[in-house]
Amino acid sequence: MTALKSITELRALCADLPGGDTMSADAVVRRQAQLTKPPGSLGRLEKLIAWLAAWQGRNPPQLQQVRILVFAGNHGITARGVSAYPAEVTTQMVANFAAGGAAINQLARTAGADLRVVPMSLDKPTADFTMMAAMNEQEFLAAVTTGYDAVPPQADLICLGEMGIGNTTSAAALAAGLFGGDGLCWAGYGTGIDHQGIARKRAAIDDALARHAAILGDPLATAAALGGRELAAILGATLAARRQKVPVVLDGFVSTAAAAPLKKLRADALDHCIAGHVSAEAAHRKLLGELGLLPLVDLEMRLGEASGAAVAVLLLRAALACHTGMATFAEAGVLDKS
Amino acid sequence: MTALKSITELRALCADLPGGDTMSADAVVRRQAQLTKPPGSLGRLEKLIAWLAAWQGRNPPQLQQVRILVFAGNHGITARGVSAYPAEVTTQMVANFAAGGAAINQLARTAGADLRVVPMSLDKPTADFTMMAAMNEQEFLAAVTTGYDAVPPQADLICLGEMGIGNTTSAAALAAGLFGGDGLCWAGYGTGIDHQGIARKRAAIDDALARHAAILGDPLATAAALGGRELAAILGATLAARRQKVPVVLDGFVSTAAAAPLKKLRADALDHCIAGHVSAEAAHRKLLGELGLLPLVDLEMRLGEASGAAVAVLLLRAALACHTGMATFAEAGVLDKS
Repeated sequence: MTALKSITELRALCADLPGGDTMSADAVVRRQAQLTKPPGSLGRLEKLIAWLAAWQGRNPPQLQQVRILVFAGNHGITARGVSAYPAEVTTQMVANFAAGGAAINQLARTAGADLRVVPMSLDKPTADFTMMAAMNEQEFLAAVTTGYDAVPPQADLICLGEMGIGNTTSAAALAAGLFGGDGLCWAGYGTGIDHQGIARKRAAIDDALARHAAILGDPLATAAALGGRELAAILGATLAARRQKVPVVLDGFVSTAAAAPLKKLRADALDHCIAGHVSAEAAHRKLLGELGLLPLVDLEMRLGEASGAAVAVLLLRAALACHTGMATFAEAGVLDKS
Repeated sequence: MTALKSITELRALCADLPGGDTMSADAVVRRQAQLTKPPGSLGRLEKLIAWLAAWQGRNPPQLQQVRILVFAGNHGITARGVSAYPAEVTTQMVANFAAGGAAINQLARTAGADLRVVPMSLDKPTADFTMMAAMNEQEFLAAVTTGYDAVPPQADLICLGEMGIGNTTSAAALAAGLFGGDGLCWAGYGTGIDHQGIARKRAAIDDALARHAAILGDPLATAAALGGRELAAILGATLAARRQKVPVVLDGFVSTAAAAPLKKLRADALDHCIAGHVSAEAAHRKLLGELGLLPLVDLEMRLGEASGAAVAVLLLRAALACHTGMATFAEAGVLDKS
């Protein structure tokens, strides 16, 4: 994508979204009805294939090229003592991703997915958003563009995840800015902060909401003020995927919050997305409810890194194997329901 | 196993169960605490590995040899119009399994598991249990023995599933016999029966509970009277797995009901089992509650065939990949929580 010049230009892109291919989804439903199982008995596995087909625009859909994108960013808000880990851990974990030692490396391999990690100006943390906007317009648009350009148009599926010490505070502030509520509603334990830490986190969110109250009606300005570079990149990647007909698996609380401004701009903007899981970070369930997303699994995970999304890919593969590999009643000589 | 001579002999076996290896489980917990993630942030994936280690008796556990066992049986109760499908479908589906056309064939391949289907005297349906015991003692013990002997002692994990037109009626009757309640409590839509059919199903269960009221205090006699050959085989396989230290993934409502008598005989008898999923068959959730089992996924599946258990294997593989492949904080040079 050529560089975005303004939030107005980005807003126009966010409004111009293709729909899904209902003919391909219908073809999935027709085939599923012929397969040797009671109708609907594979439950959500059947619905997932119809969703994949709708957004890939073909039946059967395929999962040859699955790309996991993990965007990493640093956050000025960490100066307020909102995380259990020091801010250096973001960069250290990016090195761990490169060396293959993180959870997402193992999960990507298990899921047959290609992992790309995108560090977002790690040497330039966002501003402390209790004092000023986390990003100015140029920084925000640059991060959105990086995310947009990270989506391979030929991918069959992308998983969107993140790494960034402090970013559950950003996500909670962003969710509160978009959907109402305060620090008490949206702040959780993140990587495992203690009681004093969570009090600081709530206060930081409340301070930020007060400071930026004037712009909270504008979802993109809110994302710039309260989010982070990796969140902006996830927004850009979610948008690019929609415009290029690539289905998306969102990961946990931070990834979901990052994509949420799109939904505020257009009610069907996340129809090409599924929630891979629901996190143990309590606000994630609340946020999914606001977005009308039903998570695929609930494994009490709260790691980020696209780890929950990668687990969901395993289920998509299982669903696709059934859809493409099963015999029909006629082929197998099995009596159908009378 | 040499042939069981009496229910008394089987009852003695059911009481003589080894415990899990807590040292191996503790070793898992110690390693998990060193891996590059916040403590506990992989949620249930971490707990699954501790469970696998406890029952395999080693850290790390392994998943080289995963065996899916699907037992198939026919049921005299089908004469009462309790299923949406004709009874011939059991045999036809066994042929479909052999030809590779069923859902479980695709799921087993996806999960890297070896599938074995064990037809249980399909030409001899069990008796209509509203009139007499579904199986006499010899038939029941023979089916338990077949299940027992189907478990490879060297397996790293087994998944237990079933196929049998009419067997959600047997499972519901068995659950009611063990835990109380009636047809209304425990009968569900199975493969998709209509309202008249479910009324017949409830009535058949109530008739059976009345007829066999005298033996409902004896879990094994209840399994013989109300169950089926494939359910008895699952009971035998669950018992064999425990005695041979092989962890078990139970599938849906029927498989869970089949193993339930063991829990009535000894409170810790299913500690080597996990519930792969919770079925859309409503009574499954209720039964899992009775057994204290927390299902791994809820995908609205209701197919049987070990399909939900096979999906759970994917998650176990993901969990194991993280446990064995991740770097420690020290190895990766990542700062641990202060």
